[in-house]
Amino acid sequence: MYFARLCCCVCTSLLLVGLAHKNFTRMCCASVPLGLHSVEGVWPLPQSITSSPERYPLNPQAFYFTYGSQSAAQEGCSVLDEAFKRYFSLIFPDYSSGRFYSEVKFLKCKNEVRFKVLLNLNVVVVQSDYTLSVSAGQASLKAETVWGALRGDYSICKIYLKSTDFPRFQFRGILLDTSRHYLPVQAILKTLDAMAFSKFNVFHWHIVDDPSFPYQSRTFPDLSAKGAFHPMTHIYTQSDVGRVISFARMRGIRVLPEFDSPGHTQSWGKGQSDLLTPCYSGSSPSGTFGPVNPILPSTYKFMATLFKEVSSVFPDSYIHLGGDEVNFSCWKSNPDVRAFMLKMGFGADFTKLEAYYMENIVNITVALNRTSIVWQDVFDYHERIPKDTVLHIWKGLPASYAAELSAITKAGYRVLLAAPWYINHISYGQDWRNYYTVQPLNFSGTEEQKKLVIGGEVCMWGEYVDATNLTPRLWPRASAAAERLWSDEKQTSDVDKAFPRLQDFRCELLRRGIQAEPLFVGHCKHEYQGV
Amino acid sequence: MYFARLCCCVCTSLLLVGLAHKNFTRMCCASVPLGLHSVEGVWPLPQSITSSPERYPLNPQAFYFTYGSQSAAQEGCSVLDEAFKRYFSLIFPDYSSGRFYSEVKFLKCKNEVRFKVLLNLNVVVVQSDYTLSVSAGQASLKAETVWGALRGDYSICKIYLKSTDFPRFQFRGILLDTSRHYLPVQAILKTLDAMAFSKFNVFHWHIVDDPSFPYQSRTFPDLSAKGAFHPMTHIYTQSDVGRVISFARMRGIRVLPEFDSPGHTQSWGKGQSDLLTPCYSGSSPSGTFGPVNPILPSTYKFMATLFKEVSSVFPDSYIHLGGDEVNFSCWKSNPDVRAFMLKMGFGADFTKLEAYYMENIVNITVALNRTSIVWQDVFDYHERIPKDTVLHIWKGLPASYAAELSAITKAGYRVLLAAPWYINHISYGQDWRNYYTVQPLNFSGTEEQKKLVIGGEVCMWGEYVDATNLTPRLWPRASAAAERLWSDEKQTSDVDKAFPRLQDFRCELLRRGIQAEPLFVGHCKHEYQGV
Repeated sequence: MYFARLCCCVCTSLLLVGLAHKNFTRMCCASVPLGLHSVEGVWPLPQSITSSPERYPLNPQAFYFTYGSQSAAQEGCSVLDEAFKRYFSLIFPDYSSGRFYSEVKFLKCKNEVRFKVLLNLNVVVVQSDYTLSVSAGQASLKAETVWGALRGDYSICKIYLKSTDFPRFQFRGILLDTSRHYLPVQAILKTLDAMAFSKFNVFHWHIVDDPSFPYQSRTFPDLSAKGAFHPMTHIYTQSDVGRVISFARMRGIRVLPEFDSPGHTQSWGKGQSDLLTPCYSGSSPSGTFGPVNPILPSTYKFMATLFKEVSSVFPDSYIHLGGDEVNFSCWKSNPDVRAFMLKMGFGADFTKLEAYYMENIVNITVALNRTSIVWQDVFDYHERIPKDTVLHIWKGLPASYAAELSAITKAGYRVLLAAPWYINHISYGQDWRNYYTVQPLNFSGTEEQKKLVIGGEVCMWGEYVDATNLTPRLWPRASAAAERLWSDEKQTSDVDKAFPRLQDFRCELLRRGIQAEPLFVGHCKHEYQGV
Repeated sequence: MYFARLCCCVCTSLLLVGLAHKNFTRMCCASVPLGLHSVEGVWPLPQSITSSPERYPLNPQAFYFTYGSQSAAQEGCSVLDEAFKRYFSLIFPDYSSGRFYSEVKFLKCKNEVRFKVLLNLNVVVVQSDYTLSVSAGQASLKAETVWGALRGDYSICKIYLKSTDFPRFQFRGILLDTSRHYLPVQAILKTLDAMAFSKFNVFHWHIVDDPSFPYQSRTFPDLSAKGAFHPMTHIYTQSDVGRVISFARMRGIRVLPEFDSPGHTQSWGKGQSDLLTPCYSGSSPSGTFGPVNPILPSTYKFMATLFKEVSSVFPDSYIHLGGDEVNFSCWKSNPDVRAFMLKMGFGADFTKLEAYYMENIVNITVALNRTSIVWQDVFDYHERIPKDTVLHIWKGLPASYAAELSAITKAGYRVLLAAPWYINHISYGQDWRNYYTVQPLNFSGTEEQKKLVIGGEVCMWGEYVDATNLTPRLWPRASAAAERLWSDEKQTSDVDKAFPRLQDFRCELLRRGIQAEPLFVGHCKHEYQGV
């Protein structure tokens, strides 16, 4: 599991998971009535929270984060040191601009208190739960298990007296598709920033597909040189990829790369000859190409080399191998493929050929000490896949994905749910409600089966999305799914009660510079100005 | 009609109509096959165009706009002088940044020519048609009737040999709703910029409505002080409004203000007591308010004063008075209103009361020498409206708006079509095709009736739209309607042929800094980077 590699004071991306996902939205400046659903701007809802009606002024000159003396992590842990800087600027937006210095002199806060954040990181903590508690007077904040965090303002602020929290699901992902449209690195970084605010912890990078191959491979530079929309301006260099991974890690987000095959590979063929299957028209090649050619040893040699590079570039323990939507018509047309089918005893069942291909690819990743994630298609046609493979459900209506959850977990596989969160599908009105009311565990199965649902994923496929509309289309609609994946289902079962809290959170996203679209009529204190 | 006020060398906003709507997209840097539908980036399609396969380099240091010696307008006409500056920067984007100076030295363009734009404005021209022609060799461009314009690059460019053009409809509008969400002035200006690129010429400013009253009135400052979302940050000052009008005028766009009543006025009631009708629960007031109170003389006194101010602030000859969706339940509940109904002999027919109200309001605008535009509801319940009133169709499906077009024009009224262009209604996929295939004149009626269709309007209602998503939701979807309103219907009847040209135009919008969303899978040379 993801948190197994955590060790004491080593500052890993796993440690950060707790940080970025729990740091935020614990304190806010408001005077709303107390109660679970009136907790202004707190999204997703913590598992447990009690708050006080008292307000304390926060003085930026008396406010600081520090490591507890018992903490396993101490100064020098770059992930936390950087996070402290980032969060301080969010709490006191004007302070870092220099403007605050003059203003602070005129702020006469009667109840001004010295504010200190104590962080105690215990070596044994491998769960990502945390507790925040505030005692009055000194108003020190102690986060016993992992990290405490703060959000507020330099004026009067609400303090939550106690909050205990942990995620419902360990895998809370967002898929971006950088093949149907190229997304500039800045757009990806902005998304990572926003993801952390909603406690997402996996960036599923669907980096290549039919339309373009923007990943610049060290080993096979022709893949992007010939397969990208443009070989210079529409690619991700090694440095770009490294920047994305590092930026994500600082925010507690893992980067899961997907190199989908054998289908969805048209762009691969431009820079790698003999990789795709030549389609035939009658007895001669038609000049077009189909899925990856599964009958050539050169295919597997290429894939082994490519995935070796991928596993060295992307540190995550998972690799997504795709395996969806393979069209058999080209394979069927090709006499060499048909001969191979005969030789292997596959008869006319091309799913056996597909299974043969995927088995080889999964074995390559196993040899690289990586765990595979594949789309549900691989389970649907084939059951001989390694038991630690994660199946990714993307098809269909609620009825059908519940059945699929049931079937896959019954077979003992871990599963990831994406089907109800295809957020690229837009419609008029408040469709976030559909994402919010998903019940990922509402399928027929034992308790053991339910435990095999490791999480869910919001998919933003790129047919109609690029950097011009990505952010307002994602936010705050994806935040609805985020709460479903993080919070207790019973406490968050009422979508109408969630509405004003999500509206507040959306305003908070605007304040943090995320171009999140409105949920309905109304306004925010800080409107988006960046046109 | 709109162009009636045009006079010789006076530089009015009406003159600019021609300019902004004809100046653009005449020249572009490309090497596509010739033909009507392969004219890269030219949108909307001119009525007539022939182009040459030859390419000439454009040297910014030898390129200039100038007024023809016979032109009625000459240097000092601020609208044109400013337009020259703006267009020059668009043609040579790097030149104005200073970077170009060093680059140009290394540009060795063999066919470099001196390029000159001659503008001849004839006094008699009151139509907005124009002709561009280019002769080889000297490559001077002469625009005989109104203005010529250019778009290109500083490298090799295609030259259209001849283009004659005029709009199909005179009124090509976009409605923005600044009440359901406040739009910062910058967002409005950006929209005006983009509107000019698609040859829209009317900004219909639905400035107030139920949720908020952001217009800061000189005469009634409480309307925004109490009725805006925020009295300081969410208002349009007189200076803001002036800025919008002036910015629009420079781009050939008229600003049509709408102060919708008697319904859609909840926000008005906050700053103006006794304006709205008190609703009753049984025999006593319920504490809530309904539409504007039509029975009090003070109502009409207030409206006369407000519209006097509005007509002095907004120079356009039209004022939009709304008149849609009046809910009668509050009027029905009020005993004073019922007594008034009896006294007036209206019986129980509240549409008569509504008609009485609208008649009074229309008469106020007549007295101010303004022409009224009202939503179709006013025609539907009432036929005694002044003959020069324009009816605005917003309801229903194709069948029903065609019937309404037929009925209104049969009664001799001019009509404006908005119903098929409610662009705030989003759906997954290429819904621009629906906007493109509208046939505004496809209704049963005589040729005289068809002439009464003065144009159409794209409506962006604000329930789910603010500055975060306005631009990608408008563009290039609104451009589809723009071509329908500008170009010849027969030449633009094939939506599939229009697709690649609209894709090119969308890329050109990106290059000009408009955050226009993609139509489908693909890429642009200049992707949007501003996240």
